[in-house]
Amino acid sequence: MLAVTGASLTEEMYGPMPELDPDRLFPPDARTREIARELFATIANRPILSPHGHCDPAWFSENAAFSDPAHLFVVPDHYIFRMLVSQGVALADLGVPRADGAPVEQDPRTIWRRFAEHYHLFRGTPTRLWIDHALAEVFGVAAPLGADTADEIYDQVAARLSEPEYRPRALFDRFGIEFLATTDSALDDLSHHDRIREAGLGGRVVPTYRPDAAVDPEHGAFGENVAQLGEITDCDTGSWDGYLEAHRRRRAYFRERGATATDHGHPTARTENLDPDVAERLFRTCLANDASAEEADAFRGQMLTEMARMSVEDGMTMQMHVGSHRNHSDEIRRLHGRDMGFDIPVRTEFVHALRPMLDAVGLEPGLKMIVFTLDETTFSRELAPLAGVYPSLILGPPWWFFDSPEGIMRFRQMTGETAGIYNTAGFNDDTRAFCSIPARHDVSRRVDCAWLASLVADGRIRMDEAYEMAGELTTDLVKKAYGI
Amino acid sequence: MLAVTGASLTEEMYGPMPELDPDRLFPPDARTREIARELFATIANRPILSPHGHCDPAWFSENAAFSDPAHLFVVPDHYIFRMLVSQGVALADLGVPRADGAPVEQDPRTIWRRFAEHYHLFRGTPTRLWIDHALAEVFGVAAPLGADTADEIYDQVAARLSEPEYRPRALFDRFGIEFLATTDSALDDLSHHDRIREAGLGGRVVPTYRPDAAVDPEHGAFGENVAQLGEITDCDTGSWDGYLEAHRRRRAYFRERGATATDHGHPTARTENLDPDVAERLFRTCLANDASAEEADAFRGQMLTEMARMSVEDGMTMQMHVGSHRNHSDEIRRLHGRDMGFDIPVRTEFVHALRPMLDAVGLEPGLKMIVFTLDETTFSRELAPLAGVYPSLILGPPWWFFDSPEGIMRFRQMTGETAGIYNTAGFNDDTRAFCSIPARHDVSRRVDCAWLASLVADGRIRMDEAYEMAGELTTDLVKKAYGI
Amino acid sequence: MLAVTGASLTEEMYGPMPELDPDRLFPPDARTREIARELFATIANRPILSPHGHCDPAWFSENAAFSDPAHLFVVPDHYIFRMLVSQGVALADLGVPRADGAPVEQDPRTIWRRFAEHYHLFRGTPTRLWIDHALAEVFGVAAPLGADTADEIYDQVAARLSEPEYRPRALFDRFGIEFLATTDSALDDLSHHDRIREAGLGGRVVPTYRPDAAVDPEHGAFGENVAQLGEITDCDTGSWDGYLEAHRRRRAYFRERGATATDHGHPTARTENLDPDVAERLFRTCLANDASAEEADAFRGQMLTEMARMSVEDGMTMQMHVGSHRNHSDEIRRLHGRDMGFDIPVRTEFVHALRPMLDAVGLEPGLKMIVFTLDETTFSRELAPLAGVYPSLILGPPWWFFDSPEGIMRFRQMTGETAGIYNTAGFNDDTRAFCSIPARHDVSRRVDCAWLASLVADGRIRMDEAYEMAGELTTDLVKKAYGI
Repeated sequence: MLAVTGASLTEEMYGPMPELDPDRLFPPDARTREIARELFATIANRPILSPHGHCDPAWFSENAAFSDPAHLFVVPDHYIFRMLVSQGVALADLGVPRADGAPVEQDPRTIWRRFAEHYHLFRGTPTRLWIDHALAEVFGVAAPLGADTADEIYDQVAARLSEPEYRPRALFDRFGIEFLATTDSALDDLSHHDRIREAGLGGRVVPTYRPDAAVDPEHGAFGENVAQLGEITDCDTGSWDGYLEAHRRRRAYFRERGATATDHGHPTARTENLDPDVAERLFRTCLANDASAEEADAFRGQMLTEMARMSVEDGMTMQMHVGSHRNHSDEIRRLHGRDMGFDIPVRTEFVHALRPMLDAVGLEPGLKMIVFTLDETTFSRELAPLAGVYPSLILGPPWWFFDSPEGIMRFRQMTGETAGIYNTAGFNDDTRAFCSIPARHDVSRRVDCAWLASLVADGRIRMDEAYEMAGELTTDLVKKAYGI
Repeated sequence: MLAVTGASLTEEMYGPMPELDPDRLFPPDARTREIARELFATIANRPILSPHGHCDPAWFSENAAFSDPAHLFVVPDHYIFRMLVSQGVALADLGVPRADGAPVEQDPRTIWRRFAEHYHLFRGTPTRLWIDHALAEVFGVAAPLGADTADEIYDQVAARLSEPEYRPRALFDRFGIEFLATTDSALDDLSHHDRIREAGLGGRVVPTYRPDAAVDPEHGAFGENVAQLGEITDCDTGSWDGYLEAHRRRRAYFRERGATATDHGHPTARTENLDPDVAERLFRTCLANDASAEEADAFRGQMLTEMARMSVEDGMTMQMHVGSHRNHSDEIRRLHGRDMGFDIPVRTEFVHALRPMLDAVGLEPGLKMIVFTLDETTFSRELAPLAGVYPSLILGPPWWFFDSPEGIMRFRQMTGETAGIYNTAGFNDDTRAFCSIPARHDVSRRVDCAWLASLVADGRIRMDEAYEMAGELTTDLVKKAYGI
Repeated sequence: MLAVTGASLTEEMYGPMPELDPDRLFPPDARTREIARELFATIANRPILSPHGHCDPAWFSENAAFSDPAHLFVVPDHYIFRMLVSQGVALADLGVPRADGAPVEQDPRTIWRRFAEHYHLFRGTPTRLWIDHALAEVFGVAAPLGADTADEIYDQVAARLSEPEYRPRALFDRFGIEFLATTDSALDDLSHHDRIREAGLGGRVVPTYRPDAAVDPEHGAFGENVAQLGEITDCDTGSWDGYLEAHRRRRAYFRERGATATDHGHPTARTENLDPDVAERLFRTCLANDASAEEADAFRGQMLTEMARMSVEDGMTMQMHVGSHRNHSDEIRRLHGRDMGFDIPVRTEFVHALRPMLDAVGLEPGLKMIVFTLDETTFSRELAPLAGVYPSLILGPPWWFFDSPEGIMRFRQMTGETAGIYNTAGFNDDTRAFCSIPARHDVSRRVDCAWLASLVADGRIRMDEAYEMAGELTTDLVKKAYGI
């Protein structure tokens, strides 16, 4: 395995790399910067643990070459097309497919040029850091991306993509990834994961149990999905008990294929702890497609508690990603479908919302529930105090819009004094942009070191502790939180 | 035009100035400070663009001398009397008029002394920076303001105010103002603006269309105002269509007099997108003074969408200033009327609130809607994600209580990673304190440069980009957002 | 009185102390750090004013030796056992009593070892700073606490506790405490305070009137408490007028024993200003145990306004601590009772909530109401604007989870620009951990100086002002806010 985040990746293959600032994201003060530098040196080259993300398992099972720079970097990345849309570029002109199959821009070079012409928009954003890092460290690109260098960089990246060293499995190794979890529907047969294991990546690329489509009564295909869940688990999912048993069996199926965690994307953090007969009636109402919005919400809340109970039984770590208003623009959803950059965070409440679940299982030994929020105001007010007392609760890293230098620093400053670091879960890259994985871990490691350096510099911790904490934030806490 | 924010204003007239720290508001770290200094040097002397504020157009149409230091600095400035009230000084003792015409302090020197005695209260506030800058740079005052220097400084400022160089138009030129928009009632005949054009300031001092008094059913004179709007536009504002047409015509009237923008001060960000017949019924209910609080709120929300539609038609930039609980103290309102420093920000929600309007027009090419908030928690959670994807949405600068060094820095740190700078609108001084205009732009420019310097110092952007961005934040983005 | 926060406490008794970083919590930049150092030097040794806290008056009336290190540091401190619980340690294993009297760990050395083994959990938290400071400065401990030093440090602290110099009154003197207020039930006979006065500490240790148990209709013993309040004041508390008169008399009883303030711990900031007959009916409903949750909440809100009215009469400062969801875990409450670390902050609203009370008395000359919040989002949005205009309103220092380096800095940065420092109340240690008092004041003074230094460093205030402000933050504003 090559060095990843600290040293250059392609140097031995392609000669000297362009200059990324070796002190990037470190504190400006010289003494504090030196401390950060020393801390970072000890963890920069640690392997990458990616316990939550959205890589496509087909990449690793099929190991096909990525098609071209535009479809690798631009077309699938909502961080990127979102920003271009905000300045008047149409999604179709970036090659984003239409829901009705109407034609969109097909030429990857044209798409890439549009991206490059607008690259200044990303100044000051983490996307800029990720792209620069990926182009420089993964592809050996030496020039800054812009309208004038678009073609040259396109050609350079395209050429590399045709080489065997740029196939997914080769990159996986070069990136130094030790563990990567994908996110998979409960109904997925995990055949890609079977082939990944056959290819010898078993235990390094694993699935995650994400049952939303069979849990959310407002999902368009809820009834069908529940029926299908019954079929593939040989359970009568027409009954509440059978439905729960089906989840149990399906979790076991995932666990046998390496899964260590489940994941739940809900609009709110609401949980319920209903009497079984009440829950059963609610389930039947949902299944009959008769549930009001309130009932659907209650059912999702009940299912979080049920999933937590199953985690007590089977030891899987439970992740909750809550608080996104999905598909804010009706027109975009109609034209291009879901997940088109129009997901907007909303104010989220945890203290009352999590209480039913915490009353049910919050003190269970060994249970691990990781909470992610898009509402930073809850970090110091609600989540750090909750995670700082409930043994089952762990703070997920800053998510989505907050997976950034300022966001990570605010997270540590707002949670560290109440929850410490030992009730947090290290870093998630949470990405579907494969080539940004080293960049994202690099940013996170640097900002964590910058934060630790600030604590050392003003006498809050000793240097020997900071070394330990840097390692724990980078790998140990991840392994503990995800049972790796 | 003299140099404004970087160099001294009165030096050539009055000799050496007192020492304002030339590095004020720059980062403490020496290297980062040097970067900020270099960036600031390139934009310090750019002309001032003031696209939103509350200057009295009569100043420029009549060009009369300002009466005295107290009535220039203290009596009309809610930032100042608010703070003195908080420490037990009565509004009447500061010369603030009573609603019932009862006597209040008339002697400007006495008012000024009261202000000076309490000047320490402003330590650490932006008001302190603005006043110090105005006294030093505009009036050549060399001593710090305080009880012991009150009379001396009063005399010095009073003497200057009698000179022709301190008349409004002369100061306007000395301040280097290239563009200044006032805020004007839809019912205003803009006669001052006509005289301003005759005086040759046309296109440099322009009105803004602010129709709140004829849009808010809870405004005491809503019915009269709607009727008057009908009269002056020759429309039947008793009908919904006529009412909308009256707004269209009145916007055109403003536009002909140089207006490039409208402005809307609402208690919440609520918008509606009602069917025309539902909207019409709601309008009639409001006009009949029969609207419930909920109906009045819905009507205001509908009118935001209507105004956005008209902006699509006529190209005027739309501004929304939402989230102030006005006139919090009943007693103060009874004694002294509105806008007496008792306006308090409230929690504000944008994601659901703006959705009806954004569904209606949010993807319209060319539409520009600038949103201002008094709830900083919405910056990273709601507004930056919204502005970072909707092409029509632009983030207004930090407003009112947040138009300050810490507030501006927080704004950039909380929005810059998601919306970048290109979905923001540069700076507004938003002031009725004329002599503070150079100071406010100076503060904003310095803090923006401090922020950019921090990005350069830790390798997030290159210096050549920072130079570009400094200029864009200072002028280019303002011109683009306001169609100047 | 010995030097307290700046210099070593035990040096003259026990020889050289371990090294706490003399520059701890100062800014990293060398120039700013030097400014902070100079400011701190002028206030480090000022006496301690502790106008709100939870010291047990029995300590000072009885002056018995503290029993052992575990029962001094660990068992009563919810900051400490909360964090250990979050990592799976049971409260019973830390010696925390069971509600049913079931056995818990009794051996102090065992408890201390468990604490020491988990001491790394506190890295980056204020608890770590407080404990380190107390061990080093109060007990002369030279080694870092950890599993390997647990016994040695236990023995050292235990040995000291048996010495007369470590009795409460001796420590009180050594800590340089000039004024300390305890928090006492309205029903308390204050006999400990009588004995404290006899011991010559009168005026230095005083009670605070905390009537919650006789004000909150949802307190289990509300009816009994109201009856008892009637008995001890010789009032008919079965009537509304008699009930209010009983409070008046009881406040006088406290005032005669040195109390300068009242304190009110409510779930929300809700206030009411009801007509007397409506209030009377509400009181009777509550007394009859017939109140709905809404009515109970309204009654608490009405009582805040009544207490404020009494403060206008008798001059006592009123404190409001609002926004904690108490006893979040039912199971912990059942097993161990109240106040077991499971109190979690909730979102809090002040602008509408305080309005009835502010309408009633907010402009009263001389009235002082100090507001504390656990919702940091209200600082810049609601509380600083309110305190920055209402003469009666004062901002309490950062409370509980926010009484920390980052919390204090955020408080100043978020309130200082709108409310200045003169509408704030200096520091509260608010602790029941006696030996942490010097540490907590040390942290607060250092962070305030760090903040002031940042204002000097970037030219926002002059150094002569910063010296003044440092002193005001440390003592003058405390005295003014609490009428000391």
